[in-house]
Amino acid sequence: MPAEAAAALCAIGRRFHARGWVLGTSGNFSVVTCPDPLRLSITGSSVDKGALETSQILDIDDSCRVHGGFGNPSAETLLHFEIIRRRGAGAVLHTHSVWSTLLSDSHGLDGGLAIEGYEMLKGLDGVRTHEHREWVPIVPNDQDMTRLAREVGSTLDRHPDAHGILLQRHGLYTWGASLAEAVRHIEILEFLFETIGRTATYRTRGGQHGIAQDS
Amino acid sequence: MPAEAAAALCAIGRRFHARGWVLGTSGNFSVVTCPDPLRLSITGSSVDKGALETSQILDIDDSCRVHGGFGNPSAETLLHFEIIRRRGAGAVLHTHSVWSTLLSDSHGLDGGLAIEGYEMLKGLDGVRTHEHREWVPIVPNDQDMTRLAREVGSTLDRHPDAHGILLQRHGLYTWGASLAEAVRHIEILEFLFETIGRTATYRTRGGQHGIAQDS
Amino acid sequence: MPAEAAAALCAIGRRFHARGWVLGTSGNFSVVTCPDPLRLSITGSSVDKGALETSQILDIDDSCRVHGGFGNPSAETLLHFEIIRRRGAGAVLHTHSVWSTLLSDSHGLDGGLAIEGYEMLKGLDGVRTHEHREWVPIVPNDQDMTRLAREVGSTLDRHPDAHGILLQRHGLYTWGASLAEAVRHIEILEFLFETIGRTATYRTRGGQHGIAQDS
Amino acid sequence: MPAEAAAALCAIGRRFHARGWVLGTSGNFSVVTCPDPLRLSITGSSVDKGALETSQILDIDDSCRVHGGFGNPSAETLLHFEIIRRRGAGAVLHTHSVWSTLLSDSHGLDGGLAIEGYEMLKGLDGVRTHEHREWVPIVPNDQDMTRLAREVGSTLDRHPDAHGILLQRHGLYTWGASLAEAVRHIEILEFLFETIGRTATYRTRGGQHGIAQDS
Repeated sequence: MPAEAAAALCAIGRRFHARGWVLGTSGNFSVVTCPDPLRLSITGSSVDKGALETSQILDIDDSCRVHGGFGNPSAETLLHFEIIRRRGAGAVLHTHSVWSTLLSDSHGLDGGLAIEGYEMLKGLDGVRTHEHREWVPIVPNDQDMTRLAREVGSTLDRHPDAHGILLQRHGLYTWGASLAEAVRHIEILEFLFETIGRTATYRTRGGQHGIAQDS
Repeated sequence: MPAEAAAALCAIGRRFHARGWVLGTSGNFSVVTCPDPLRLSITGSSVDKGALETSQILDIDDSCRVHGGFGNPSAETLLHFEIIRRRGAGAVLHTHSVWSTLLSDSHGLDGGLAIEGYEMLKGLDGVRTHEHREWVPIVPNDQDMTRLAREVGSTLDRHPDAHGILLQRHGLYTWGASLAEAVRHIEILEFLFETIGRTATYRTRGGQHGIAQDS
Repeated sequence: MPAEAAAALCAIGRRFHARGWVLGTSGNFSVVTCPDPLRLSITGSSVDKGALETSQILDIDDSCRVHGGFGNPSAETLLHFEIIRRRGAGAVLHTHSVWSTLLSDSHGLDGGLAIEGYEMLKGLDGVRTHEHREWVPIVPNDQDMTRLAREVGSTLDRHPDAHGILLQRHGLYTWGASLAEAVRHIEILEFLFETIGRTATYRTRGGQHGIAQDS
Repeated sequence: MPAEAAAALCAIGRRFHARGWVLGTSGNFSVVTCPDPLRLSITGSSVDKGALETSQILDIDDSCRVHGGFGNPSAETLLHFEIIRRRGAGAVLHTHSVWSTLLSDSHGLDGGLAIEGYEMLKGLDGVRTHEHREWVPIVPNDQDMTRLAREVGSTLDRHPDAHGILLQRHGLYTWGASLAEAVRHIEILEFLFETIGRTATYRTRGGQHGIAQDS
C-alpha cells in the first residue's frame, strides 16, 4: 500500500508541476496508508515535484520516524498531522500557485477570502448548490512550525466547514477523505482563485456590465 | 460504435483537462451513437476528465437507462437531451473554463454576450465571414435540472442561430453535427472568450499608440 | 521530400496547438519542396492542427493543383504564394493567437505596431541588435482572397524589412528561408506580442517605475 | 560526464521550452564538468531549446575552444564564465520569459527589483525565512559582450547575496552549485516575477475586500 501511495503521489507531482503549482521544490503531498496506528506516505523535503521518484516518498509514523524511502520528511509534516487529526483526512495536498500566493497576500488582512455563487463549488465535499458560500481562512506565514501548526489547528476548529486554508504569501492546503478527493479540491480551489483574481482585474475596466456593445 | 465513442470522449477529456477547461470533475461530454431510437455515450457523474477511462463512459437511452459502463449519468444529462432534440446535434460538450466563468458572470445581467468581427468566428458551423455577429445567450444557473433544462430549451428556441450557450458562473455548452465539430466549437468559443476578456482589460490602459480612438 | 515536409508540418501543428496558437482548425502552414517549378506542401482546409495527419498535407503546384494528400488547399493559399514570391520564402506559417488577435485589433487604426528594444528581436533574420525597431504592418481582414492577397503583397513591398504581418482580428503571417527559421519567427513574434500586451496593462498601475518598494 | 551533462541540458531545454521561457532559440544553459582546468558543457548558439539534441551541447574549455559537439558556443559564453568565476557556480541558466522581460523593462531605471515576504524565497540557496529580502539587480542590455560581461561581473561583486541578475528587456541569469539547484533557482525566480507582476496589476483595482488598506 505504501508502494501504491508513492506511485500515486509521483503522478500528482508531475500533474501539478505541469500547471506551475509546485515549482522549485515547493509543495508537499501526503496520503494515509493506515489510520491506526497512523502511517503516512509523504513527499520528502526539498525534492523536485516534476521529477518525483517513488524512493523520495517517505513512509512515516506519527512520531515522524521514517520506515521507508530516502531523505527527511518536510518540516511542514506537522501541518499534515494537524489536518489529518482534526478533519479525519485521508490525504493532504499543499500547492504553491501564483494565484493562491497573490490572493493570500492581498486578502491577508481580512483573515480570509469568501467565494460564492460558482457552480464549481459543488465539487467540494458536501456542497450541494452553487449558492454555497465558502470561506477560505488565511493564516499568517510563520517559520516556527510548532506555532504555525497550532495556528492552523485552531483555525480549522474555528472554521469547521472550510475545505481549504491559505498560508499568507505561501500557498494552499486542502485535503480529502481520499487522495482523489484531495486532488479534486486542489483543482477546484485553484480554479476559483484564478477566476476571482481575473474577475476583479476585469471589472476595473469601468463598470461591471455592458461591454457587450463594444466587443 | 459506443466503444469508439467512449475512446474519443476519453481523448477529449485529456485534451481539455490539459487546458484547464474541465478541472475538478467539472464538465461533461456526449455523442449520439444512434439517433432513433436515441442512444447516447455520455461521461459518468463526478469523474476526473484528465484520467477518463472508457468504463466511465455510459451508454444510455432517452430514458437515462444505462446499457453499458459503470456509474451514473450526470444530472446535467437533461441539458444534453434538450440540445440534441432542439438542434439535431450529434455531440454536446460542456466546459468550465476561467474565461467562460468570468464573462458569464460579468455579462449575466445583459442576458448574453455579443462577439463580432473576428476571423475565428468563421469556424462556427455556417458562418462565412468575420463580419458575423454571434450572440451567446447567458442563462442563470439553477440546481433544479428540470427547470434549467426548460430554460435552456426555450433560450435555444429564442436564439436559433446561437452556436453556444453560457450558464452563469458555470460554463459553456456547445454542440455539433459531429464530435469533431463540437470540439471545434469549444476551441473557437473559448478562444474568443479569452480574447474578449483580455482585450477589455487591455483597453482600460487609456490609449497608447492610438488605442483611445478605436474603443 | 513532400513526405518529410508533411511530417515536419504535423509536428509543428501539435507544437503550436499545445500553445493555443491554432485552435479550432485555425492557422495554416506551408513549406516549399521545389522552388522552380514551384511545389508546395501545405495544410489542407479545415483540419485540426492538434491532430494533423500527413495525409492532410497537400502537395500542390503554383496553380493550386493537388498532386498528393487528401482535401482542398486553404482559401488562404493565395497569401502563401504572395509571400513566397515577394520574400523568396522557403516556408510560411500563419497562427491565430489571443495576443496577436488582441493587438491587431487594438492597433489596427495605426496600420501597424512598433516593437523595439528587446533582445528577442535578434532572433529575427538579419537583426543584429536589440536596438532594432521592427514595424509589424496590420492589414484589414477581408473575405475576398484575391483582394486580400493583393493588399498583403503591396504591404510587403511597402515594408521590405518586415518579418511578419498581422491581419486585423485574424492573426499573424510570418515566413523564413527554412521551416526552422519560420518557426523561430513565429515564436519570437508571439513572445513579443504577449510581452507588449502585458507590459501595457502592467504600466497602467500608475507610473512606469518605482513599485520596487511595495513588493 | 560531458555526455551526462549534455543529456541533462537537453531535458532542461524541453522543460523550459514547454513553459515558454526559451522560445525562438533564446536562452542558454551550461554546467561545469571539471572545475580545474575548467571544462564546461554549454548549449550551442542559435539552437531550438525545445528540440535540443546532445550533439548541440558543446564541451569547451576556458578559452572557448570546442572539444566536442557541433556548432559554436553562444556569444554569451563570457557571461557564463563571469558567473562561474565570481560565484563558484557549477551551473548557469539563462531564460527569456515574458514576465522577466516585462519587469526588467519596467524596473530598469530603479537598477533592480526587491522581492520580499514570500515563502518561495526559501528555495533560494542559504535563505532560511520568508522574511528575506532579495534584491535582483537589473543591468542594461548591451551587444558588446566584453563590456556586458564586465558589467555583469561588477554587479555580482556589488551584490554578493544576489541569486540572480536581470538583463534589461532580455531575461534572467541564475546559477547554482549543481544543475538541479540552478533549475530550482530559475523556477523560483520566474514564479516570483509572475506573482509580483500579477499582484501589481491586481492591486490597481482600487480596493474590494479590504485590499486598499494593505497596499
